[in-house]
Amino acid sequence: MPRAVRERQMLDAAVEVFARRGYRAASMDEIAEVAGASKPLVYLYLNSKEELFSACIRREAEALILAVREGVDPGAPADRRLWNGLRGFFAHTAAHPDGWAVLHCQARTHGEPFALEVAALRQELVDVVTQLIVATAAENGCDAPLPWQEASGLAHALVGAAESLAGWTNGRTDVAPAERDTAETLMNFAWAGLDNLMNGRRWAPARP
Amino acid sequence: MPRAVRERQMLDAAVEVFARRGYRAASMDEIAEVAGASKPLVYLYLNSKEELFSACIRREAEALILAVREGVDPGAPADRRLWNGLRGFFAHTAAHPDGWAVLHCQARTHGEPFALEVAALRQELVDVVTQLIVATAAENGCDAPLPWQEASGLAHALVGAAESLAGWTNGRTDVAPAERDTAETLMNFAWAGLDNLMNGRRWAPARP
Repeated sequence: MPRAVRERQMLDAAVEVFARRGYRAASMDEIAEVAGASKPLVYLYLNSKEELFSACIRREAEALILAVREGVDPGAPADRRLWNGLRGFFAHTAAHPDGWAVLHCQARTHGEPFALEVAALRQELVDVVTQLIVATAAENGCDAPLPWQEASGLAHALVGAAESLAGWTNGRTDVAPAERDTAETLMNFAWAGLDNLMNGRRWAPARP
Repeated sequence: MPRAVRERQMLDAAVEVFARRGYRAASMDEIAEVAGASKPLVYLYLNSKEELFSACIRREAEALILAVREGVDPGAPADRRLWNGLRGFFAHTAAHPDGWAVLHCQARTHGEPFALEVAALRQELVDVVTQLIVATAAENGCDAPLPWQEASGLAHALVGAAESLAGWTNGRTDVAPAERDTAETLMNFAWAGLDNLMNGRRWAPARP
């Protein structure tokens, strides 16, 4: 079996075991067993439990970002772009609960190096959204351009809201809402405000 | 000095040291020194590093929830209630960056017991917001009442957005935006959508 195939099987097994047991309790024995490989081969290919965990974080994060990017059709109107990006996000996190658990729970709860990797990937998602917001506001030709800092704040708000919703739906033990419903809830929550801002309409605290 | 005062000083010192060093690297020696107390007295009053950390989590979380609740005037219109709740949240997290770091970063990154305590307190915040949304929709007499599940999803989205923004502003090394600006960004982001939903107006994916 080619090395790339073997490595993919090992990463699949590792994501499953890390999600189920947590980073600390996960054993290389179990990962090797689930992968159907010998433990020495896992060490030979992926070096250590720490490096294996880092490889899982990178792979799962890249897959998530790709799912969001692929959802967005650059030619579509702004609300369809956001809607499709959100559907990409929730469809991916619902279809890959173990990968999401590694990113959202495990990687953040096991110290600096992993938390920093996740933070970098999260920043990449925030940047994608910031650019989308700034570009749309510019296309709309709104009088006062949306400052980058505010667009970045809005992007942090949207990513935080999406993470929180994905954690909520994936963590449910009763029937979880469909991915489409979750995307629609967030779209309903976020779109009207974004649309207003991107068109220069603001809510002001002093309004009657 | 009365025990309650001493304990408060110890908790203040512990929050400062946990935020600066992280849970694992924080030492009871340093906490005692910052508190101006002897280490045996810290152990006598607060038992162990683990219990001291739990006490910090509870105190900081209760203070944050109180700041949000106190911001909300039950007699005000819905947008003022949300605006004041958000200002309470961001004013508190900006004024207590160490407490926020303990809740948002440290408590989640050091294992089950602490993460569960933070999750319970977070749920309390989500419940406050869910009730606010459901009550406002009912007051508005909207034709189709907002289902509890959807209101809960919206509340998770709002709390996730607020956490993400507070983490962003508190983590900045350049000049952080004023608490008022952060609250206004989130209000602009979230209010229009919530207002639409609470009045039975929806964004639909099929609109032209």
